[in-house]
Amino acid sequence: MNSKPNAIVQRADDVARRVVSTGVGISMQMLIGPDVAPHFLLRRFVIEPGGSMPKHTNRVEHGQYVVRGRAKVGIGDKVYDVQSGDVVFIPQGWPHWYKTEGNEAFEFLCVVPNVPDETTLLDRD
Amino acid sequence: MNSKPNAIVQRADDVARRVVSTGVGISMQMLIGPDVAPHFLLRRFVIEPGGSMPKHTNRVEHGQYVVRGRAKVGIGDKVYDVQSGDVVFIPQGWPHWYKTEGNEAFEFLCVVPNVPDETTLLDRD
Repeated sequence: MNSKPNAIVQRADDVARRVVSTGVGISMQMLIGPDVAPHFLLRRFVIEPGGSMPKHTNRVEHGQYVVRGRAKVGIGDKVYDVQSGDVVFIPQGWPHWYKTEGNEAFEFLCVVPNVPDETTLLDRD
Repeated sequence: MNSKPNAIVQRADDVARRVVSTGVGISMQMLIGPDVAPHFLLRRFVIEPGGSMPKHTNRVEHGQYVVRGRAKVGIGDKVYDVQSGDVVFIPQGWPHWYKTEGNEAFEFLCVVPNVPDETTLLDRD
């Protein structure tokens, strides 16, 4: 961790995009990474139309804001219809999954604490 | 802090809006508050056209994502033209200010750690 980070102003579109291989049609951009902010990371995910992320858990909680599109999102034993302008909180360790709806990509910001994480895939229902 | 928070899925527009009295034309919504996520807060700010936030410091760093509009944002001794789709990082303790540009509201998400903060207004240039 950099103890004296500088200010950043950047087009999010210019940030490198990584494929999320545990899902289908998902990419992730690390907008504010582990060397920047001491306490949190800010990531942007895009799930292409028809894409999905299977049920999984993380060690860390997620704070999310949907920028674009629609999806069904499973959290614990509930399924939610989520769309642009929605805020989502997924507690630490809760199973969750995503499946896009409609013809638009589903794009969301995801805040997590700046600590090591692990993604554990669960059996599909 | 709630030790066992539940999942949240909510329209951000339905979250209570507080006037930010240190600025002009600014409101804030606590999308993910101090009783929800152990490590961070997620807030949404709207600065109406013509609105501004004077130069100030905070005890905490800011991770921001611009959802809508344009503004001039001063961070340290630099001034940036910031617009929808930009990511901004303001290190802890750095002076910063905002002034909207154009006829659209400037709306942004702001992540901070879940620790006490203090806003200190500085002299205007």
